[in-house]
Amino acid sequence: MIATASKDVLRPTDDGARVQARDLVRKARFGMLATLGPDGHPNASLVSLATDVDGTPLALVSALAAHAGNLGRDPRASLLLAPGGKGDPLAHGRLSVKVQARPVARESEAGARIRRRFLARQPKAALYVDFPDFSFFALDILGASLNGGFGRAYELAPEDILSAPEAAAALAAVEAGAVEHMNADHADAVALYATALLGARPGAWRLSGLDPDGLDLMLGDEVLRLPFQPSLAGAEGLRPLLVALAGKARAA
Amino acid sequence: MIATASKDVLRPTDDGARVQARDLVRKARFGMLATLGPDGHPNASLVSLATDVDGTPLALVSALAAHAGNLGRDPRASLLLAPGGKGDPLAHGRLSVKVQARPVARESEAGARIRRRFLARQPKAALYVDFPDFSFFALDILGASLNGGFGRAYELAPEDILSAPEAAAALAAVEAGAVEHMNADHADAVALYATALLGARPGAWRLSGLDPDGLDLMLGDEVLRLPFQPSLAGAEGLRPLLVALAGKARAA
Repeated sequence: MIATASKDVLRPTDDGARVQARDLVRKARFGMLATLGPDGHPNASLVSLATDVDGTPLALVSALAAHAGNLGRDPRASLLLAPGGKGDPLAHGRLSVKVQARPVARESEAGARIRRRFLARQPKAALYVDFPDFSFFALDILGASLNGGFGRAYELAPEDILSAPEAAAALAAVEAGAVEHMNADHADAVALYATALLGARPGAWRLSGLDPDGLDLMLGDEVLRLPFQPSLAGAEGLRPLLVALAGKARAA
Repeated sequence: MIATASKDVLRPTDDGARVQARDLVRKARFGMLATLGPDGHPNASLVSLATDVDGTPLALVSALAAHAGNLGRDPRASLLLAPGGKGDPLAHGRLSVKVQARPVARESEAGARIRRRFLARQPKAALYVDFPDFSFFALDILGASLNGGFGRAYELAPEDILSAPEAAAALAAVEAGAVEHMNADHADAVALYATALLGARPGAWRLSGLDPDGLDLMLGDEVLRLPFQPSLAGAEGLRPLLVALAGKARAA
């Protein structure tokens, strides 16, 4: 938990706040990272993002950037997700996430998964992801503060945002194959998820990731999130759900 | 100065970098503020911004927000100005400014000037600016790091961004009257500055501020900056310059 606002303006955390916070985390391609400089002075910088299967934010950073050295010295950080929209950014929802940065070795099983998910979300990073001075950090969520607009403040715990660990592990084991299969053999269904279920413009939408809580869809720089209701408890429910969603989309 | 990147990727600070950094500071209406929480953990939050006459960023914060308490305990902070643009935000220029926050009393001469300039830049803040739990902080610049896009990094000193102090003091003394006069009696010239000199769309552009280095123009949520070349050394040069710019705009 983060003491982000006086208790008297905080609202009780409800499903609406959880949905909004998860949506901000799952759709973020960029965010602002607050780290601690060598002199203890805070440093604010821009980072490109993806998420691990369980929703943990992932950052790819260059050793040449100040935040890389900062995170190496002190893993305490904070991530602001404030995509904004029309007009006043303060009128739109934003999430301040208290995180602890964890370096992820490229050679590990987690490293391979994270590299794959990051490139699915940030295809242009393929140009430099394997440069020796670039490395991944997982930003483990310690708590978060959601500002849903003027006067609407909520505090969230990690479990309000992240997927259930067992379900995330089960989906992680099948995700690569399922995403490849859907994009290769069921591109029509993927496009319908976007257009018929989420009202998106027509186009070659592709699946960039899937997890117990939903699907990540992309078209160029556009990102969509199709949340599952309810979430999946394991991998066995995935195929029937994807088929049912395609049926729903065709009937829509 | 801030050690934001290894020395070998830093480019020598040049006029192009200074112009880009000043433009980011002078046009910012929002930014991300990195502060230090009570436990020493960094905190990233969104703030609305304006500038003082000399270019010092100004933030209006609610005592109910975490960053207000943080700045009260420890004035060390960092401000990220990353307005982005089309496509990848990492492809656009952004400025990370190392700052020291200074509370500004509403009743002081500086407080009155800051309130006036802030409201000219953020008219909607009139709804809450005078609430007792809101207060202004000036974010005194200690240094800055400009990332002008992939591989283009510069470090800047305060004097690379701020106006000359004597010139700023001279302009501050005449600014309120000059802005009011221009908007009331020369709205046609103000609109021409925007449309003829800066290529903006037609509309009821108004002057929101002026300083030794240029004019701030606004239309709704749109912000423009017309830099003076060269800067003004004092207030006596202002009137002839505004007349000359209007002539140039009419001839354009």
